Amino acid sequence: MNSIIGYYSTQFGELWKKSLDNLLIESFNGALSQCNIEKEQIDAIFLGNMLGGLVDSSLLLEAHIAELLEVHIPVYRVEAACASGGMAVQMAHEYLLAHKDSTVVALGGEKMTDVSAEHITQALATAASPTEQAVGLTFPGVYALLAQIYLKKYHYTEEHLAAISVKNHSHGVLNEKAHFRRYVTVDDVLDSPYIAYPLKVLDSSPISDGAAAVVMTNQSSLTKSSKAATIRSSEVATDTISLAKRGKLDGLLATEIAGKKAFKTSGLKQKDINIMEVHDCFSIGEILALEDLGFWKKGQGGAQAQEMAGHVESKGNLIVNTSGGLKAAGHPVGGTGIKQIGEIYLQLTGQAGKRQVASVPTCGLAHNVGGSGGVAVVTILST
Amino acid sequence: MNSIIGYYSTQFGELWKKSLDNLLIESFNGALSQCNIEKEQIDAIFLGNMLGGLVDSSLLLEAHIAELLEVHIPVYRVEAACASGGMAVQMAHEYLLAHKDSTVVALGGEKMTDVSAEHITQALATAASPTEQAVGLTFPGVYALLAQIYLKKYHYTEEHLAAISVKNHSHGVLNEKAHFRRYVTVDDVLDSPYIAYPLKVLDSSPISDGAAAVVMTNQSSLTKSSKAATIRSSEVATDTISLAKRGKLDGLLATEIAGKKAFKTSGLKQKDINIMEVHDCFSIGEILALEDLGFWKKGQGGAQAQEMAGHVESKGNLIVNTSGGLKAAGHPVGGTGIKQIGEIYLQLTGQAGKRQVASVPTCGLAHNVGGSGGVAVVTILST
Repeated sequence: MNSIIGYYSTQFGELWKKSLDNLLIESFNGALSQCNIEKEQIDAIFLGNMLGGLVDSSLLLEAHIAELLEVHIPVYRVEAACASGGMAVQMAHEYLLAHKDSTVVALGGEKMTDVSAEHITQALATAASPTEQAVGLTFPGVYALLAQIYLKKYHYTEEHLAAISVKNHSHGVLNEKAHFRRYVTVDDVLDSPYIAYPLKVLDSSPISDGAAAVVMTNQSSLTKSSKAATIRSSEVATDTISLAKRGKLDGLLATEIAGKKAFKTSGLKQKDINIMEVHDCFSIGEILALEDLGFWKKGQGGAQAQEMAGHVESKGNLIVNTSGGLKAAGHPVGGTGIKQIGEIYLQLTGQAGKRQVASVPTCGLAHNVGGSGGVAVVTILST
Repeated sequence: MNSIIGYYSTQFGELWKKSLDNLLIESFNGALSQCNIEKEQIDAIFLGNMLGGLVDSSLLLEAHIAELLEVHIPVYRVEAACASGGMAVQMAHEYLLAHKDSTVVALGGEKMTDVSAEHITQALATAASPTEQAVGLTFPGVYALLAQIYLKKYHYTEEHLAAISVKNHSHGVLNEKAHFRRYVTVDDVLDSPYIAYPLKVLDSSPISDGAAAVVMTNQSSLTKSSKAATIRSSEVATDTISLAKRGKLDGLLATEIAGKKAFKTSGLKQKDINIMEVHDCFSIGEILALEDLGFWKKGQGGAQAQEMAGHVESKGNLIVNTSGGLKAAGHPVGGTGIKQIGEIYLQLTGQAGKRQVASVPTCGLAHNVGGSGGVAVVTILST
């Protein structure tokens, strides 16, 4: 049985005084100290990072980690664009399935705000298909196409999308690590400038710096802790890099497949899940995620999003993105997938502080997407 | 028991008509067809690539693979600079330890010759430490420092280094997939231009395009094949990214640690190994590798290299880099680690064609290095 026993996130935001190495090491040390583990107890490290090469001129980050921690253990850097963090946890989970009595760290982080907006936008666009890049599509554009298709097919409006941002900002206010901690209204969202129709600035997650780490173990002496959450499943699926090659565009097939596998492996069903973190890189992303994961019927997401925004913490309702989501908590791409799983861990173990949901949940799901859905990772935890 | 049952390498060289995607898919399909496996039998893919972002504007290569193969299975991209391919095999090995009755593919490749020499040199330098990059060190420079230290400390000359290139070129002549297929003499090496003293052009592996793939399985119906080689161990170790932070510079500690672990896990000793592929990115690299792996005593490598070059195929001697090594076979960085393991596989199963060593070996070792030794992977195979 693999468990998460510790978690730490750095501040997410514009952290001009901290390097990528600084952030990664802060998160590693923070997670270990949160569960009183020494680095000598760690058997391997799984590192999610997307842009080390393109933004920081730093590849072979394995050796950065080894140098800073003064260790010689295996370090694996995985890159799956914005799903790099979720993939690091998924790989760590596989590693623990192969190795008894082991303890590992999955961490992820990104430094994004030290370069120009043009530079970072181009760097992120490398996760789009070569053809999409060649015609000038960037990620706001890619998700805007998905949003246009969804709104038109199911007769929704920009107000329905806005509900997601309103809800996630209200959660973010309670997260001291969040990039943005202020309420926004539907009118605020609608009045914000378009970046790619129908998506506006306030439909969009920001460019952030930050890192996060989880300690994962299958050592029985450690998994018995009251501060442990069990990993019931962690599954990954892939899909075409090109939108144009997909059979449908009103959802992400990779999410659907990874979700079904994760539910099957865990033996759990949607009704068992009390709390979720889903990939709201843009507001449309959260709506698609909840449909693709089987929580809402296809096409009902627009209405459900408004309903959900109306009662964010009512008992008995599914509670989504208490961290603030990518939208308000921020989106340092390699760190996001770790933060999502860490947030579920905090909520399940009653350690979420001001944003702890009233009735401590027993079962949670984290959903992390790479690119426009070329990769999706779904991880289910329980107490 | 995990086994390798199929292998394919593309041509290595300047392949201007083929893209990275072309090369990766050619190697994947080639490996499957070599062992009559269908893609539907593959459970996961492990992809080693270093420079997709910096040279091809292509991150999230997982989804390139998914699109081209029309699959939705897990694809993991690992980046460990020039050890990316070896790491892909190592991760695939771990995955198989966790999953019974599974078959996976580890592949790796690189497209390096479509950009300027300056561009590719800078891109490769991202695997050096930030300080090393800042002072203008590139990889020829990094390995030249290691070579200077070694020659001075152990009283060797450039002739000793040259022996490695002479031997590996003589092997490369027999490899139809090699980037360079011509003999070179010690004088040729000594007369070639310096790129970073004491290393010359003919001490250095080239910039190459190419890809390679291995099929790995633990399904007993497949591992019984006469064309299967057993993976006895595959281990990885890390070290500082900076040369300046290391306790010694006359060897690579990561190689030493990974080698010791690999011998321990396999239950084998140096004397059991008949054949090896080691990381000769520069001639000094092969000398350090054979010392660090315990085949030669520290400081004896210069003399041993000359001795070895004198009788490359004598029965009873250790035979190193029959593929031609990185020097002659070429060094498409993500593909190299796979090609090394594939070469050992071919030799152990008697499929190495013109370069098959006379007495078919029973036990072989592959050694892959990232950067200046920030990561090392050692994999031991047997019949």
